[in-house]
Amino acid sequence: MFPEYDIIVVGAGHAGCEAAAAAANMGSKVLLVTMNMQTIAQMSCNPAMGGIAKGQIVREIDAMGGYSGIVTDKSMIQFRMLNRSKGPAMWSPRTQNDRMLFAATWREMLEQTPNVDFYQDMVKGLVIKDGRACGVITGLGHEIKSKAVVLTNGTFLNGIIHIGDKNFGGGRAAEKAATGITEQLVSLGFESDRLKTGTPPRIDGRSLDYSKMEEQPGDEEITGFSFLDIPKPEKQISCWISYTNQNVHDILKTGFDRSPMFTGKIDGVGPRYCPSIEDKINRFAERERHQLFIEPEGWNTVEIYVNGFSTSLPEEVQYKALQIIPGFENVRIFRPGYAIEYDYFPPTQLKNTLETKLIYNLFFAGQINGTTGYEEAACQGLMAGINAHQRVHELDEVILKRSEAYIGVLIDDLITKGTEEPYRMFTSRAEYRTLLRQDNADLRLTELSYKLGLAKEDRMDKVIQKQNDIEAIKKQLHDIALEPGQVNPYLQSLDSAPIPEKQKADKILLRPSVDIHSYVAAVDNLQDLKKYPDENMEQAAIQIKYETYLQKERELVTRMSQLEDLEIPDIFDYKKITSLGNEAREKLTRVRPRTLGQASRISGINPSDIQILMVFMGR
Amino acid sequence: MFPEYDIIVVGAGHAGCEAAAAAANMGSKVLLVTMNMQTIAQMSCNPAMGGIAKGQIVREIDAMGGYSGIVTDKSMIQFRMLNRSKGPAMWSPRTQNDRMLFAATWREMLEQTPNVDFYQDMVKGLVIKDGRACGVITGLGHEIKSKAVVLTNGTFLNGIIHIGDKNFGGGRAAEKAATGITEQLVSLGFESDRLKTGTPPRIDGRSLDYSKMEEQPGDEEITGFSFLDIPKPEKQISCWISYTNQNVHDILKTGFDRSPMFTGKIDGVGPRYCPSIEDKINRFAERERHQLFIEPEGWNTVEIYVNGFSTSLPEEVQYKALQIIPGFENVRIFRPGYAIEYDYFPPTQLKNTLETKLIYNLFFAGQINGTTGYEEAACQGLMAGINAHQRVHELDEVILKRSEAYIGVLIDDLITKGTEEPYRMFTSRAEYRTLLRQDNADLRLTELSYKLGLAKEDRMDKVIQKQNDIEAIKKQLHDIALEPGQVNPYLQSLDSAPIPEKQKADKILLRPSVDIHSYVAAVDNLQDLKKYPDENMEQAAIQIKYETYLQKERELVTRMSQLEDLEIPDIFDYKKITSLGNEAREKLTRVRPRTLGQASRISGINPSDIQILMVFMGR
Repeated sequence: MFPEYDIIVVGAGHAGCEAAAAAANMGSKVLLVTMNMQTIAQMSCNPAMGGIAKGQIVREIDAMGGYSGIVTDKSMIQFRMLNRSKGPAMWSPRTQNDRMLFAATWREMLEQTPNVDFYQDMVKGLVIKDGRACGVITGLGHEIKSKAVVLTNGTFLNGIIHIGDKNFGGGRAAEKAATGITEQLVSLGFESDRLKTGTPPRIDGRSLDYSKMEEQPGDEEITGFSFLDIPKPEKQISCWISYTNQNVHDILKTGFDRSPMFTGKIDGVGPRYCPSIEDKINRFAERERHQLFIEPEGWNTVEIYVNGFSTSLPEEVQYKALQIIPGFENVRIFRPGYAIEYDYFPPTQLKNTLETKLIYNLFFAGQINGTTGYEEAACQGLMAGINAHQRVHELDEVILKRSEAYIGVLIDDLITKGTEEPYRMFTSRAEYRTLLRQDNADLRLTELSYKLGLAKEDRMDKVIQKQNDIEAIKKQLHDIALEPGQVNPYLQSLDSAPIPEKQKADKILLRPSVDIHSYVAAVDNLQDLKKYPDENMEQAAIQIKYETYLQKERELVTRMSQLEDLEIPDIFDYKKITSLGNEAREKLTRVRPRTLGQASRISGINPSDIQILMVFMGR
Repeated sequence: MFPEYDIIVVGAGHAGCEAAAAAANMGSKVLLVTMNMQTIAQMSCNPAMGGIAKGQIVREIDAMGGYSGIVTDKSMIQFRMLNRSKGPAMWSPRTQNDRMLFAATWREMLEQTPNVDFYQDMVKGLVIKDGRACGVITGLGHEIKSKAVVLTNGTFLNGIIHIGDKNFGGGRAAEKAATGITEQLVSLGFESDRLKTGTPPRIDGRSLDYSKMEEQPGDEEITGFSFLDIPKPEKQISCWISYTNQNVHDILKTGFDRSPMFTGKIDGVGPRYCPSIEDKINRFAERERHQLFIEPEGWNTVEIYVNGFSTSLPEEVQYKALQIIPGFENVRIFRPGYAIEYDYFPPTQLKNTLETKLIYNLFFAGQINGTTGYEEAACQGLMAGINAHQRVHELDEVILKRSEAYIGVLIDDLITKGTEEPYRMFTSRAEYRTLLRQDNADLRLTELSYKLGLAKEDRMDKVIQKQNDIEAIKKQLHDIALEPGQVNPYLQSLDSAPIPEKQKADKILLRPSVDIHSYVAAVDNLQDLKKYPDENMEQAAIQIKYETYLQKERELVTRMSQLEDLEIPDIFDYKKITSLGNEAREKLTRVRPRTLGQASRISGINPSDIQILMVFMGR
């Protein structure tokens, strides 16, 4: 009934969809298996994409030729560039999205992708031969063959949903859990553990009084996520901000004795940086209030997502507490908040390619690896899809370095340090974050992706044009020297000191208050630069303004590359290096780092251990 | 947590959505409870609305102020007026719809309806007090109070899905079954039984070769369903026709030993007029081929619905058989066909209002009553919603007569005759079908609905205008006498005999080949009629052309109304009428007909029984 596929992707969430798209676009014949074709690319949690560090990831996915950025742009109802007041490394795009349109757009794009087939069924097990994944077995009893398998099961593996003292099996509210895979993998020697996450109640927007909340409209200028030209919406929908208070907290506490979090019913560890409201009250008892972010679910629906109020308290407690929040006096709940526990596989069991160490040609991506977040899932799917393709076509592994992308940071963190709680990306996790900006993801990654056959001509052409423009702009600004009379009126308008004598245009741009657009608009001699696209002007300006910092980080990358580029042979036997301590030997054996750089980041590995390894590697 | 509602509607399919909309628009405070808010108004079966007799029902729903017609018009991808070559009583509108857009539009319209609240949870039981439904109990343990309850559980009550020798609980593929309600109702004295229905596989349109099929495009002119002015699509998508053949049948037969239909695994009776392909092969062994209708699922999806190939045979048999169908050589299945068994309650347990006889203020609508079809479900929902509203506000029952609407025929059939197989509407079920046309549903029903507060001013105004126009057009055609020279050139162009002398314009219109539009266009003296809308011109022409037939049916209605209008008192005790035969006494006691007309339609009741009843009623 089924042909043999190159790659079977199990699960059609953010990770599965990106994996299928990437592998198919590179030329692999892909089957995407999902329990329900109506729920492809569901946003299980809030209807938003991006945000701090996460926005950078979506830009990187887009630069690589993934679909998340395009889908997000096509379904956005609001755009904001967060952290605009800070340096460009901190700028982070975020959208609110129409939940239904997001899913529909993903499905449409996948259907338009040649080489992606679809099948609706539950995968219950893998076909493993000679230590190699070569197919799946479905609930309806089909054995479907493939050369590689990518598992992206999200929260579905043995998922249990908790609301107060009630619990039942499920992968999301109203959707079945998936069974069979964990058990088989454990029998093959995999370690698995439990994590938990949760969502807030969804409520009826008609029952809210927005006059008691603070409006948060979108930005006037919409950059979007994709480096391609996706039409942007002409109007946007606002979000709203409200706050809990002591009364809300007091009511929530009345449910603590029935909270599965506190009664020990939930074993799994929850996401530290996206805690439930009961967790926040408990851990930050001194805080008088917590902010809530009221997110509309789409263009044409009254449904509202109460971000910040994730909870698994009994529903009547959720209801009573909500009612005390300003603007929520008449609140009506559509669907209660809940917690969900699910199986994950500690990611130190993976190689940098997201292939498992135990089974060849088996890749894991997304929440199954212990991460949280759509963006974290999507980028893992992308990399797993790329590497599964490379693997079945006997091509080189594709590994992004920590200095190249947040995606590289994320995967290196996961496989090196593992995680015991849902892993979320932050800018602070990236040591080269000044280099890894949202604005230059295309300059960093598109060429690689283009060489892989993933990004297409249109992307590469745009990048080349951008690079050429930037060089030209920088050169012109360097070549033009401005007379005091030409620029001082502009500088005075900024309250910036006038120049006493002729000065190069790029030097003047270094002043923090000088912004490239107003500068070019105000100074006659710079008129010629107006011909360049805004985006490219900005990019050139960033490179000029931050050159010192960028240069420092580039030097650091070079210095560190001595370690990063030193690959440790696969067969290296740490147990025999008696000069290493016990802990180091054990951890290195477990993680099997690919490079000395990776080894240095394993917790418990000291610089002296690295020195010893260098000696043994003949350096 | 919940206020007390006037009406709780359980289930958000076609029946539940119409029930909620109707009751809310009449002023009741309604709660719509559904297991999954993402699946409101799913088209569980094919992506189409209307068709023969069913199209008339949708027009009636629309005329009454229901939403199905509007939603259908807004989501249509193709329109056809079936039976255009026959008389106007047979004309039946049918659309193909975008499955996702249909559901999204319904949800949007419901959300825009004041008085409709939503809640996502499974209803596990009813609250019954003093023989009266006054709330529901949900899976999460909530007791929600109301003055009436409408059950529209579709195929979810103890649903079991069958594919070959595999079966599992489910209300639709990938959705959970609902439990608890049947058991409670049976314990209260209700009779329940099993029915089954099924769907064909959904396939990948990219795998089909349409050059081997026959194209079926939409009509050039789109009437649509709603009597309101809903914008119509500018382009349409074609359907395709292909056929099974003996080889297909032979392959299907190889699976018969694993067919749940034939191995006795399915107890429920399937829809006679929408049988599975294995049923068709079995029952019509002499037929060499069966037609398949290849229906696209929407504007932007490659998914295809293979209408006519409903099956619960093992999936590999489905696949092998599909491959032999012309155009399907490379077919790829997205989701297999399956059969589903579910509980229904034989509808003789209902009053004409769809209230149950056993429990006050409890209404049933849709497949729970043993019907099949979106349209049949929707119109029951509408009537149950209306009557639930009337009941909780102590207003008169609303009962459509068999002479007023297909809806009246359907409900009268159900509650009088019951059904032991899924009941589907046909024009042949309506004895007054010349009166019950799709084109005059507004003239028949809007005034009633307007008086109920359901249809709004805009609908009533349009109907009054239409009535006035029709009278004016008829009068003008009657008043104008045409000279031979004025009309004969036109008649000759139709190959119709010329008139020898002056003749009234309406008399000439009686000729079958004379169509009102070409007539008015061709004859100078009729130019003045061009000012009327096409729809009203056509309506007047139908009334003129078919006056003889219409008059006959109206007389029949009057004659029959002697029986139809004779109400039998609720307290009438048939057991005491010893002159009635045993069968008649038993059946009359069970059905408890509301009128003598209804009594006369109970199978086993003879004219002599009716005579006896008339005597006892004092006539």
